[in-house]
Amino acid sequence: MRVAISTGGGDCPGLNGVIRAAVLRGILEYGWEMVGITDGLEGLISGQGLVPLTVDDVRDIHGQGGTILGTTNRGNPFRYRVRDGGQWVEQDISGHVIHNARSAGIDAVIFVGGDGTQEIAWRLAGLGLQVVGVPKTIDNDLLATDYTFGFDSAVETVVEALDKLRTTARSHDRTMLLEVMGRHAGWIALHSGIAGGADVVVLPEIPYDPEVIHRHLQARRESGIAYNIVVVAEGAFSRSGSASILQQAGTGTVARLGGAGDELARQLSALGDYELRVTVLGHLQRGGTPSSTDRVLATRFGAAAVGLVANGQFGRMVCLRGDTIESVPMADVAGRQKHIGLDSQLLQTARSVGICLGDERVD
Amino acid sequence: MRVAISTGGGDCPGLNGVIRAAVLRGILEYGWEMVGITDGLEGLISGQGLVPLTVDDVRDIHGQGGTILGTTNRGNPFRYRVRDGGQWVEQDISGHVIHNARSAGIDAVIFVGGDGTQEIAWRLAGLGLQVVGVPKTIDNDLLATDYTFGFDSAVETVVEALDKLRTTARSHDRTMLLEVMGRHAGWIALHSGIAGGADVVVLPEIPYDPEVIHRHLQARRESGIAYNIVVVAEGAFSRSGSASILQQAGTGTVARLGGAGDELARQLSALGDYELRVTVLGHLQRGGTPSSTDRVLATRFGAAAVGLVANGQFGRMVCLRGDTIESVPMADVAGRQKHIGLDSQLLQTARSVGICLGDERVD
Amino acid sequence: MRVAISTGGGDCPGLNGVIRAAVLRGILEYGWEMVGITDGLEGLISGQGLVPLTVDDVRDIHGQGGTILGTTNRGNPFRYRVRDGGQWVEQDISGHVIHNARSAGIDAVIFVGGDGTQEIAWRLAGLGLQVVGVPKTIDNDLLATDYTFGFDSAVETVVEALDKLRTTARSHDRTMLLEVMGRHAGWIALHSGIAGGADVVVLPEIPYDPEVIHRHLQARRESGIAYNIVVVAEGAFSRSGSASILQQAGTGTVARLGGAGDELARQLSALGDYELRVTVLGHLQRGGTPSSTDRVLATRFGAAAVGLVANGQFGRMVCLRGDTIESVPMADVAGRQKHIGLDSQLLQTARSVGICLGDERVD
Amino acid sequence: MRVAISTGGGDCPGLNGVIRAAVLRGILEYGWEMVGITDGLEGLISGQGLVPLTVDDVRDIHGQGGTILGTTNRGNPFRYRVRDGGQWVEQDISGHVIHNARSAGIDAVIFVGGDGTQEIAWRLAGLGLQVVGVPKTIDNDLLATDYTFGFDSAVETVVEALDKLRTTARSHDRTMLLEVMGRHAGWIALHSGIAGGADVVVLPEIPYDPEVIHRHLQARRESGIAYNIVVVAEGAFSRSGSASILQQAGTGTVARLGGAGDELARQLSALGDYELRVTVLGHLQRGGTPSSTDRVLATRFGAAAVGLVANGQFGRMVCLRGDTIESVPMADVAGRQKHIGLDSQLLQTARSVGICLGDERVD
Repeated sequence: MRVAISTGGGDCPGLNGVIRAAVLRGILEYGWEMVGITDGLEGLISGQGLVPLTVDDVRDIHGQGGTILGTTNRGNPFRYRVRDGGQWVEQDISGHVIHNARSAGIDAVIFVGGDGTQEIAWRLAGLGLQVVGVPKTIDNDLLATDYTFGFDSAVETVVEALDKLRTTARSHDRTMLLEVMGRHAGWIALHSGIAGGADVVVLPEIPYDPEVIHRHLQARRESGIAYNIVVVAEGAFSRSGSASILQQAGTGTVARLGGAGDELARQLSALGDYELRVTVLGHLQRGGTPSSTDRVLATRFGAAAVGLVANGQFGRMVCLRGDTIESVPMADVAGRQKHIGLDSQLLQTARSVGICLGDERVD
Repeated sequence: MRVAISTGGGDCPGLNGVIRAAVLRGILEYGWEMVGITDGLEGLISGQGLVPLTVDDVRDIHGQGGTILGTTNRGNPFRYRVRDGGQWVEQDISGHVIHNARSAGIDAVIFVGGDGTQEIAWRLAGLGLQVVGVPKTIDNDLLATDYTFGFDSAVETVVEALDKLRTTARSHDRTMLLEVMGRHAGWIALHSGIAGGADVVVLPEIPYDPEVIHRHLQARRESGIAYNIVVVAEGAFSRSGSASILQQAGTGTVARLGGAGDELARQLSALGDYELRVTVLGHLQRGGTPSSTDRVLATRFGAAAVGLVANGQFGRMVCLRGDTIESVPMADVAGRQKHIGLDSQLLQTARSVGICLGDERVD
Repeated sequence: MRVAISTGGGDCPGLNGVIRAAVLRGILEYGWEMVGITDGLEGLISGQGLVPLTVDDVRDIHGQGGTILGTTNRGNPFRYRVRDGGQWVEQDISGHVIHNARSAGIDAVIFVGGDGTQEIAWRLAGLGLQVVGVPKTIDNDLLATDYTFGFDSAVETVVEALDKLRTTARSHDRTMLLEVMGRHAGWIALHSGIAGGADVVVLPEIPYDPEVIHRHLQARRESGIAYNIVVVAEGAFSRSGSASILQQAGTGTVARLGGAGDELARQLSALGDYELRVTVLGHLQRGGTPSSTDRVLATRFGAAAVGLVANGQFGRMVCLRGDTIESVPMADVAGRQKHIGLDSQLLQTARSVGICLGDERVD
Repeated sequence: MRVAISTGGGDCPGLNGVIRAAVLRGILEYGWEMVGITDGLEGLISGQGLVPLTVDDVRDIHGQGGTILGTTNRGNPFRYRVRDGGQWVEQDISGHVIHNARSAGIDAVIFVGGDGTQEIAWRLAGLGLQVVGVPKTIDNDLLATDYTFGFDSAVETVVEALDKLRTTARSHDRTMLLEVMGRHAGWIALHSGIAGGADVVVLPEIPYDPEVIHRHLQARRESGIAYNIVVVAEGAFSRSGSASILQQAGTGTVARLGGAGDELARQLSALGDYELRVTVLGHLQRGGTPSSTDRVLATRFGAAAVGLVANGQFGRMVCLRGDTIESVPMADVAGRQKHIGLDSQLLQTARSVGICLGDERVD
């Protein structure tokens, strides 16, 4: 049995833990030959990037960020971008991928990636490739699983940043805005805002009203506290109808003048006399050594993916439900995001300890 | 409404997060007066240790380890140790505690503590005190809740230690044994062993055979790897019938010559030629700033405890089930520990990636 | 004897260590009364911000970032901004400061701050105030001292960020640019670039040529390495004469379109096909718990400042020379920055291990 | 030119930084061929452990603890232990080492190690081998250099432990003793004690009197503070003449019943009613990712060692003086340790902020 592993999409702490666990279990328990596909599917498309993965190759990689296989955000084989004469065109090269996999004697592929990757895997399955999936999104916004690895590490990075900003905020009586990842869902912002003791958290799920935030901060000032910690998900936007500039920029119609953090800073500046500072964490949230929580989850996912292959449960993706690793059909994953419910317990908790979410509820 | 908070038993990262959340919600949402009882119940017993807890008092304490209220491992009011003439005797001073609570106008007490504390709280409830509970055990061995705060931070501390020991182990071809907390249950050892890429993990739940471990390490050496990482729960013991010296010492009959880590080191030394080093993490696992996971859980528990009081659900303890905070009767908690099931998924995962658990299963 | 402490300018890890050491030594060794001036000199200007500093007040603050006294970047009493009718005007209120200090019975003031603060202190000394100084600059660019506290912590924060960016850079074959503090001197950039294994470091001291950097990165790519780590001091600029937009913005004539990191990214984009990502660390470099190195230095500075007061050595500032705390006249400090010498050993070391500094030297 | 690198003695954060810098400079600046000797000198003795070191081999290793070459505490070729019949005997195999080095075409060897390693290197130089040295001791007790890499990382590890123990100490009113490295010199204990805000620090340089420490802690208790942080260097001993049991154990005459931390705990227990807890950090101090300070120093040392080879300055060891890398004759290093001077400024600082050093001076 020859089983391949591919990591696709943005990198994420824990990817190496998945690879390591899959390789160890595949070899030690089942005696399979394990191979890695480099750079998403590029290694398979070119036919040049299939690398053997032995026990030695994955030794001690569980603590390293990134992926030893490399990854890419490009390379959907159903819409593969190639140069045709002077311009880029999209081609369907999926048949080529299937062919290369067969030529290489690959019996199954473990796809580690987000909903885009899982959809590609699912369509390749339709062409006859035996696939299983491991979910990956640092934003934790996949509906099929309670948590994804990488999320805990990202929250930890954000909370460390909040701890640092807090000391400056206090010393200078400043309002520090920290923009964090979360284009469509505010899991990172909400978890890190609660853990980091934020005063305000704005999320993609709840359009915010700058006036509400301003009143909240004014009330703090009147009680004698002149510093504030504000966590802004990158996909947050105000309810004025002017969606975040960042999101508009995505449509190509508006020049990017800054992200959601900058926008809220401008709005607050217009309302009051704040000493504002915006910090954008950006890629720092994706890198570095994974937290222990993410390492355990990555190990469980990697080992479970091998279990799916061993049991012939192709077309399924591993997931976490409660404290148990289960699996779901890949088809259930595509295009279904997990948002923070407006009446969810975690949101209520945030409100109950005084965090302003920027909406009109009486906090 | 005047609501008191008490923290009892060994300290644990996240205690301050519970206190902060309870105080914030109690004041901001319900307008209660919140007070703290210092040093477990000592402050109430003496009548001298009731301190007001305002929003200012709990500001920015969520990132601090320990408890601002102090704690103690002594002080069960049903068996309170007092000096009578020349010797210590135990008295039941529970009536005195109830009296002091009434005199101080305390309407309810939130007890944050382990099964010992919860049992005391439950018995005080029987005497008429309105109580709710928040579970606390760094070992994560309370049956009533999926996870307890402090556990994640402890695992993180252990994994950081394993990462450090690994570089030395590799450079010197050594076998590093790390003894971690877990007298009755091996949750810390198992989670950190998986996260830290341990080669061997021994747990209180599975009596180990030194020969099995020796053979596992010899097989590694034969494959060219001469360094090993071994995680030893303090309550682990070998199946030879000679329970861990540490445990015997608990009976007062055997002088303490070392813990479970030392014992396994002696056993391995007798079997082969190892360069062994034992490290005992001890109290380092209890201290320091809580992880973001623990801060979120502590906040949820603290806020939920206030919810129980607000709803008059006395005699109940908050708990985590899946991703939801619920509550259980305190009576259900006492004396019921949560052990790692021998067929649990997590144990299987550990075996499947090649971790030796010291038993005779073919790994 | 009544001795006051003031912390001025931007905050910096280690300020609390200075305060703690000065208070402890002043009280324990000399029996003085120690007081803190809040928010730079604001507490003295208003007369409302003199707070007693006891041993209890400074207990365990050495590990906290920021300053318990607060600080401000405003408030030069020789050019104090006050509202006169509808507009802001500057007034010399130094006489008022001296008067308030005398009224409060203050015998000496320890000024902890950068060259601006030291100059103010020096001028107040000219009006009869007994002052001593403790240097503070996170940028390490004060000529009078080998190192300043806060610098090591800032470098550590940058290196942690570089470690995180590296894993992403490798996994995605990206060029990660990290903009760090250092408007006039590149100490943070150079130290963190060496420690973090950067491929390119650009500094205010060496105008860079984007072409040189491009050629360096192309050579890397030709040798098979497609990811790069670039550290950009915020004050770095290219030699084309177009000084960094950030610096121009300081004159108020150019709208800020981004910092030095964005500029270099634009320049590289124009030269080649890079997958570039810019991260700006900003205030994260100022906050958080100080490194052990900074805690030791802060303690030494604080204790030594008390020694200067005890010996009547007013008008002097403590400094580090080699491994010894010494002192210099405050007058020597003002306006004299410490830049990285173009032939300094550290620069040579950077070049010798292959770091491109953006100039035309054959690297 | 073919230049070899050897790392000997106990491991130490920064070793890989030295290797990386030497390899990069040797190849990039001088075009040499660089090779590594595995496991101290073992690779050269066996002739089987000479590994090429290319730019690729040292990529991104600067952040890893340990040494990619391996190390050993055994293997002095002048007293090499070999089996002769049934027992171990010592042989002088230095001629064999020289022969193997010549056969392998090695022009010079960079020895990274402590005074033992430097002495071996010096003696091999006497036999005709061209050698240069890089000092390594985590204890910072080499006379020839102001600081050694690894020391700062070790202190950082100790201070993080102290920060963790402090929260427990406060919450439980305990006296936490932390035993740290430093058999002959107390640099780690003194630096970490100052940085970590210890109340008592005991060092090998100052025999302590348990009564003095007891009185110091009693005075604290009388002022209302019932928790204490005590840092104990492993080589500390009381002045009663009963040298530390650990040291006696070194002579083989006394069974090891514990280290210096345990001894002080016993002594304090005999004097008063303390809630004592002893933690021994042990190997945790040697492992893990090096601090930025150590990474910079390691890079400078590695690059400078190549400079010595390039200039034909054999028989010399690089060192740090003030902020400059210099070199000294290896012969000056052997057997000359750097102790903390009893009137050193750093000791005075410790006393001046109230740290008890266990001697009779009025603190």
